[in-house]
Parts: sequence; structure tokens; C-alpha cells
Amino acid sequence: MKIEIITVGDEILIGQIIDTNSAWMAAELTRQGFEIVAITTVGDREEDIAKALDTGFSRADLLLMTGGVGPTRDDITKKTLCSYFHTELIFDEQVLQQINRLFASKNYPMNELTKNQAFVPKDCTVIQNRVGTAPLLWFEQKGHILVSMPGVPFEMKTAITGDIIPRLEKQFQSADYLKSSFLVSGITESSLAILLDDFETKLPGNFSLAYLPSYGLIRLRLSVRGKENLPEMESQEKKLREALRDFLVAESDEPLESLLGNVMRKERLTLSTAESCTGGNIAHRITLVPGASEYYKGTVVSYDNAVKTSLLNIENETIKVYGAVSREVVEQMAQNVSEKMETDCSIAVSGIAGPEGGTPEKPVGTVWICTQAHRKTVTQKYQFGSSREENINRTTNMAILQLIKMLGK
Amino acid sequence: MKIEIITVGDEILIGQIIDTNSAWMAAELTRQGFEIVAITTVGDREEDIAKALDTGFSRADLLLMTGGVGPTRDDITKKTLCSYFHTELIFDEQVLQQINRLFASKNYPMNELTKNQAFVPKDCTVIQNRVGTAPLLWFEQKGHILVSMPGVPFEMKTAITGDIIPRLEKQFQSADYLKSSFLVSGITESSLAILLDDFETKLPGNFSLAYLPSYGLIRLRLSVRGKENLPEMESQEKKLREALRDFLVAESDEPLESLLGNVMRKERLTLSTAESCTGGNIAHRITLVPGASEYYKGTVVSYDNAVKTSLLNIENETIKVYGAVSREVVEQMAQNVSEKMETDCSIAVSGIAGPEGGTPEKPVGTVWICTQAHRKTVTQKYQFGSSREENINRTTNMAILQLIKMLGK
Repeated sequence: MKIEIITVGDEILIGQIIDTNSAWMAAELTRQGFEIVAITTVGDREEDIAKALDTGFSRADLLLMTGGVGPTRDDITKKTLCSYFHTELIFDEQVLQQINRLFASKNYPMNELTKNQAFVPKDCTVIQNRVGTAPLLWFEQKGHILVSMPGVPFEMKTAITGDIIPRLEKQFQSADYLKSSFLVSGITESSLAILLDDFETKLPGNFSLAYLPSYGLIRLRLSVRGKENLPEMESQEKKLREALRDFLVAESDEPLESLLGNVMRKERLTLSTAESCTGGNIAHRITLVPGASEYYKGTVVSYDNAVKTSLLNIENETIKVYGAVSREVVEQMAQNVSEKMETDCSIAVSGIAGPEGGTPEKPVGTVWICTQAHRKTVTQKYQFGSSREENINRTTNMAILQLIKMLGK
Repeated sequence: MKIEIITVGDEILIGQIIDTNSAWMAAELTRQGFEIVAITTVGDREEDIAKALDTGFSRADLLLMTGGVGPTRDDITKKTLCSYFHTELIFDEQVLQQINRLFASKNYPMNELTKNQAFVPKDCTVIQNRVGTAPLLWFEQKGHILVSMPGVPFEMKTAITGDIIPRLEKQFQSADYLKSSFLVSGITESSLAILLDDFETKLPGNFSLAYLPSYGLIRLRLSVRGKENLPEMESQEKKLREALRDFLVAESDEPLESLLGNVMRKERLTLSTAESCTGGNIAHRITLVPGASEYYKGTVVSYDNAVKTSLLNIENETIKVYGAVSREVVEQMAQNVSEKMETDCSIAVSGIAGPEGGTPEKPVGTVWICTQAHRKTVTQKYQFGSSREENINRTTNMAILQLIKMLGK
């Protein structure tokens, strides 16, 4: 099944926002074994949208369309789809009820424009939007499918994972697509490609291996179509596992924070963190996991050195002698936050995220990470890049990873 | 002059990388007054590229194409363009000299693969790449133009600003693009549309108003092409400002955390935070701003109630009587973190992010936010949705916004 993603929105064509929606959808659909053949953005104009649909249908079986479905005048997708599929708008009582429920739960007042969201094209399947007012519209015509959904990232993500992928899997896919994921770290993408050269050369032609690098981690996806390939898949997995050696962190597609959560739950451990340069991002990532409160107690972000002293009891002398970005400070941070929050494990980081604050001895990107577990301590120095965002994300990944490794995965 | 941006690259179609190149090009070209009508990504396959070119030429006068021009086997753009324009590759001595100069300056060894970069299509204008090995290829045919350039961001940017825009400006006349942004909150998108109904009805036809909602905020973009419209633009801005009344937060395109940073710096204030349900996301957002350490001291994330007591000195009795998600607790959190970190301002939040933890009186999405500044306190209760991610992001936005409003913007 070939898919094209079509985004409707002038804001992307003028470069006001970056189209992260399409990247998210592409990654998610690829992970599920679907093939994306094109990604297109066009403006909020009827003839441009219609043209994009014509082109889309000529190269793809399914068009996933986001944007232009809000209640305001610049939102013309619904009207355009009616013309395109030669149908008309009808009122859908169920959609209105869903909107009423949503608005009531948020104490929003209802108004006429919002009620208009319940007008939907006659000849399509209407799927309720669980978290917003614009329903998903699913058109099928001559073996082709078009699904229109909101462009609000949170609504789009809910629609893709909660409704669209499950329906596509039911309609088009069985256990026909085999894939396995390997999480790798401690090696660059090109070095990994050299390490896997022999494996890839010998890999049967119907198999594919994709590299998905992200902030110090690389996810490998080994895949093949057809369940008759299961024995060969298992054999290839074994070879890949052997080739990856110690660089292999986990055979999983889960985010790092979920992997950590699994270990915490399984071993009934508790966790606290003390952050400096990551500014709360480690806590944020850990608490993205539903149910994290079972094992996670909290963090102290000591962005200011005075806070390191007042809240984490780091000795002034230690900061003066070694500097805030040092093995000594980060080890005290890990030890003290663990004592204060009474946890079994802790993560502490201190570094220079940039763009300012670097020195010749400690340039931007210098980071110390200390992890404690079972009364043992691991402390490591890292040298990351010059970008603030990159340093925050790499430090977060490496810190969580360091604790996962300490706990024996 | 209508422009389409075409990116060639499987890595975008599988969601491995976000297409930031197109956003950068779109912003840069829009600023120069050019109109982007579509942005398309297709994979590294000849027929897919040819199809994208056909579609592109049917809706645009100029195609700007990036990617697929490297020296390795998977880079097929040059070959595809030769077929498409019915021409052949010839050796270009000047391109080789440029590559030699470049490699000599970096002490890179030359190899055969790189020398092949000097083979270029016969029937096109070759423009030297100032910073890389693949030259820019400029095709003109029947009034249409196609320019192929490298996808490496630094090379693409150098080509666009140094060669392509100057040539386009010389050859065509561009109309300037005027835009202004308004950040709005406290109103749903549909209510805002009703509020602005009269304004939109009277808005001249060449102007456009776009709504961009995100987690409790709506960004409005008012725009028009042609600098002769500047007086009318100013007049419309004034009308919009009046229509928006108190819902207008700022006339800016900046993220909320940058707006807060601007106020903090200007008023020379310091800030601390105490978080519960946001799990460090407020601190994370605040510290995304370069230089945040000037005013931001830190956060305590008390995910566990015991941490509220031990690190933030919240009285056990208060938690017992009112619950952790209450006006009383969140006000103590704001007060105590401010005292402990010795800051002028503070933000404290406590709520139920979900999916678990809700009760009939305090369902998932119940959030209390307290902000303190200049010895004054504002405390508000919010009722957000049922999604954990949405609740974390809405709480973060509303908390930062509440403080910005307290400080009189």
C-alpha cells in the first residue's frame, strides 16, 4: 500500500512553521510497515488542493491529508473535498454530541461556528475526533482512500495511532509484515555502517535494514514482507545481534524512558534526578511515561549554583575548587538528591549547553553524568556539540541510557 | 513568479529526518517576495522524480530541487535530469578545478567518485558550488526554470542566498510580502472567529488572516503581498488589535518562553518554579531559551508528595486536608520555592496529568496554577482534557502565560 501525506497550510509554504507533522506521520507509518511515496504541502486554495489530490491519487493508494478543517474561514478542506468527491454537507448529530461532550468537559461555551463542525460530507465514513472538534473523514473511491484529519499535532497524533493505523491494519495488513528493532549506542552512523557491511552484503534482497539516528542513539529496523520469511528473519536477527555486539542496548522500539520505566517497575526501584544543563528535560522525558509516579519521585533543577548549595547541599568549596561542571559536583548531586528524596537510584547531570558559557578547558558541550543504583556509582564525562538543543537532548539520552546499562538493562 | 520546492530523499519519507531545508527556503524566498505554491518530497527513484517534475511544472514557474546530487550510487538526480531534459553528461573542467581548490583547502584526498561530480548535463547553465562538490544546475525550457542544488543544509543555504535569489531578482520582479503575528489566548478558535467576523468581512480581498492554534494559544497571521499595501496593513493591524481586546497577549511570532525571558531581562527579575504534573516541562521550556541562566534559578519537581514536604516544606497537614491538587498546596509551593531559591517571581503547578489518578471531584485534567511576582499572587484552576501529553503542554503554556500577564506583558 502506497501512501502520500498531503498537508494543507499557507503557514508551511511561507516557512513560518516547520512541517514536523509529516515527519512524525512518516516515522510512525514506516514503523508499522507502510510505504510513504511522497509528502506534499499546498496552500489553502481549492484548486491547489484538488490538483494535489489528483497527483496524489496517481501515485498512491491512500492519501493522508492534514489541515484546513478548523471552524474558521481559512479552513476550506471540507468544502473542497465535497466538490472533489461530488457530494454535499449533511448534519451529523453524533459529531455534535461528541463536540458537546468535549466542550462540557472543558467548560467551553458552545457557539454556532463550532456547531458547524458537525456538518460532514455525505458520502464518507465519519470517525469521531476523540480530542478535538473536527471529525476524521474517510473517503473510499475506486480502490483509493483519502482520509482528512486535523493538523493540530496532538489531534493528528491521536487520530493516527488511535484510529487510522488500527483501521489500515485491519483492512490491508495481517501479520504479513515482519520487523524487528534494535537500539544501538556508542557508535556513529557511518562506523555502524562499516561494522555492518558484511551483514548487509549477505542480507537477502527481500530484507531491508534502515538506520534511524537520533541524539546519540541509532535505531535499526530490520524488515521483510511475507510471514513465510519468519525462519529467515530469526536467523538474520541472530546475525545482526552478533554483529552489533556491545553496541546493542535493547531489542525494542520503545523510547528510552519507557525502557527505564520497565526496569524500575520490574525491580521495584525508585528514582530521583538532579539536573543542571538539561534544565528539567530528563524529568520531563521520564514523566512522559504514563504511571511514572509509581517509581519517580522528582527532580531538582539547579540552574543557579546557589540552588545547588541551598537545595542540594553541594558544598560551596567543591564548586569553587572543581567548578560546577565537574565529577565532584555531579557525584554530590546524585548522592544528595537520592538521600533527600529517599530513592534507590538517581541521575545527576551538569554541563555547558551553550551557546554561551564555554571556556578553553570546558568548551560548550562538556557534560558530566553520574548515575547511582544499588549503592554503586558510575560517573562519565561526555563531549557533545555546539548546539544548545542538541546538547540538552544528547545529555538526556545518555543519562537515561547510563542508568539503564547500570541496571543490566 | 510561482515556486515549488522539491526535495529528493528517502530519509524524509521514512520520517528519519525533518525537512527543515524546505522551511528555511520557504521563509527566505517569502521574505524576498516570492510565492511558494507547493513543497514536495519524493524518494530516490527516477520515475517518482520525473512525475514530481511534471506536476511541479504544471503549477509553478520555477522548481527548486534539492538532494540526490552526491557522489554515491544512490544519488540519481543528475542522471534523472538528463533523461528528463533529453540531454547527456559532459565533463566540465571548471567544476573539477573548483572541486580541486575546495579539497586542497581542506586537505581532503581526491578520489574517482568525487571527480565524477565534474560531469554535468550538456544543456544547462552550470553554477559553481562555493562550498561543496556538486555544482548547481540551472535548466530553462519553454519559460520554465528548474534549479538543482545539493541537500546539505549549509551548501543549500549558500546557493540560495549567494546565487539563486540574486539571479531570480535580476531576472524577475518580486513583490514584497508583509506579515504580522498576533498571539491570542483565553478564547477558543471558533469563538475567536466569531469575534473577528466583522473584521474578516471587511478585510480587503488581497489580505489574508490565518489561525494557528496550539495548546491553549492561537497565533494569528495577517498578511498581504506588495509593499504598496503598507499603509493599509498598518490600518488593518490597528483594527485587528482593537477587535482582539484583552485576548491579545503579544504581537509577536516568538515562543511564550522567549516572551517571558524578554520581560525577565528587561525588568531584571529572577524566576524559580515548582512543578508537579508537568514533571519538569516548564523548566525545560524556560531553559530552551539561550541565556535563560541570567534570570532562571531552577525548579523542584515534586512528583511524589513526600518531596513536596521534604524539599518544598509543604505542610503535611495542608496536603492531607486539601489534597496535593489544591489552591492551598500550589500557593505554598510558589511561596516556598521563591524563598528557597531567593527569586522575585515563581510559578507553581499541581494537577492530574492522567491517564490515571482522577477522581469524581478532581478528574484527569484538573490543574491549579499559582504565579507570584512583586509580592503579589495569582492562583487559578483550569480544567484541561484527558490526554497526558495535552495536559502537560497546556499546563506549561498557561502557567508561563499567567506570569507574563501578571507582569503586564
